[in-house]
Amino acid sequence: MPRLVLIRHGQSAWNLENRFTGWWDVNLTEQGVAEAQAAGALMAEKGLDFDRCFTSVQTRAIKTLNLALEAMGRLWLPVTKDWRLNERHYGGLTGLDKAETAARHGAEQVHVWRRSFDVPPPPLEAGSPFDLGQDRRYAGIAIPATESLKDTIARVLPYWEAEIAPALRAGERVIISAHGNSLRALVKHLSGISDAEIAGLEIPTGQPLVYELTDALTPTDRYYLSER
Amino acid sequence: MPRLVLIRHGQSAWNLENRFTGWWDVNLTEQGVAEAQAAGALMAEKGLDFDRCFTSVQTRAIKTLNLALEAMGRLWLPVTKDWRLNERHYGGLTGLDKAETAARHGAEQVHVWRRSFDVPPPPLEAGSPFDLGQDRRYAGIAIPATESLKDTIARVLPYWEAEIAPALRAGERVIISAHGNSLRALVKHLSGISDAEIAGLEIPTGQPLVYELTDALTPTDRYYLSER
Repeated sequence: MPRLVLIRHGQSAWNLENRFTGWWDVNLTEQGVAEAQAAGALMAEKGLDFDRCFTSVQTRAIKTLNLALEAMGRLWLPVTKDWRLNERHYGGLTGLDKAETAARHGAEQVHVWRRSFDVPPPPLEAGSPFDLGQDRRYAGIAIPATESLKDTIARVLPYWEAEIAPALRAGERVIISAHGNSLRALVKHLSGISDAEIAGLEIPTGQPLVYELTDALTPTDRYYLSER
Repeated sequence: MPRLVLIRHGQSAWNLENRFTGWWDVNLTEQGVAEAQAAGALMAEKGLDFDRCFTSVQTRAIKTLNLALEAMGRLWLPVTKDWRLNERHYGGLTGLDKAETAARHGAEQVHVWRRSFDVPPPPLEAGSPFDLGQDRRYAGIAIPATESLKDTIARVLPYWEAEIAPALRAGERVIISAHGNSLRALVKHLSGISDAEIAGLEIPTGQPLVYELTDALTPTDRYYLSER
């Protein structure tokens, strides 16, 4: 039966500084590196193994995957990197301190931006230092100016259907290293979580989340590996 | 015009211990890590950039690539890993100390095994601790029992022709992170070095070797980046 593991990247510099990150390419902290290595060691200890790996084009997710694979002696596995697994684009909030933003816009407004299903933050302004228009990794794609969770889901799921689900159906064991919101998209889809509930679902950093699936990719079990 | 960069992995644990390594999967030393990071920083400083990356399925080459790409802010580039870029298989010499081997077999014999073009070392014995028959990364391939440099070239060049050369002809900028002998295979082919001379060509670890090529992939220049 297919098995899928999801892992959210370890702590990043802006997780630590409590800033909105989104598509900005922030690195792991030392703690984030240690989380990724520990995740790999745990997967090896529990006998998990993989045939294919998927990740975003963001350093923190790629490094988390590489560090975990190295700890498993599996750095040689094929890895596919795609922007459609990127974090939700936080628009004009990118780079802002979360507490400052709450002080400026009100805690309630910030809560709506962070936890509503379909309300995007204000768009990133033209000329912002966080504009990615000149970043070669996004050449040829329509970089969003902002995204709601719903918008994120709308680009994650077609990628899942086109690239990841076929690998699982072909019998490959898959790990996906990605981000809080791109993983919410997958968990919502697989576990049938409602629009109202999904934004409240917290996926901890660096914790392998295991899905046991039928051949039709219906989950029969979902658990954090550290709890088994 | 196409540009190709070759890089030999940074110092490995067995480079340091002066042991024959071949296909055995030895990690980088701290110095090897630093060499890889410095290579990436140098490539970024000199304005080199890439579209596609190729490496072997051996940890020391993959890590060298990943560390260099990270130093360039290019960890998101696509990477293809293939066993045909592996180091030459050292057969029965795998794991042996080079000085001890010379004491046992004579310095002249060891020189022949290391530096002849077509004399392979004795085959790896069945049941050797260095037998890779159970290593999943080599499932489905005919793992050699030993290789001469000529044998190594015979599996590197078809891969070059099938996968790497087409990328260069399509206008992609390519980096290959590999090993002393798999890189000798490419340098011999590109620079037209004779059978007699190629084994004596030393490619230093962690030094980006740049080829400027015509559209027909004929070299117009070859240089170590650190010398420009």
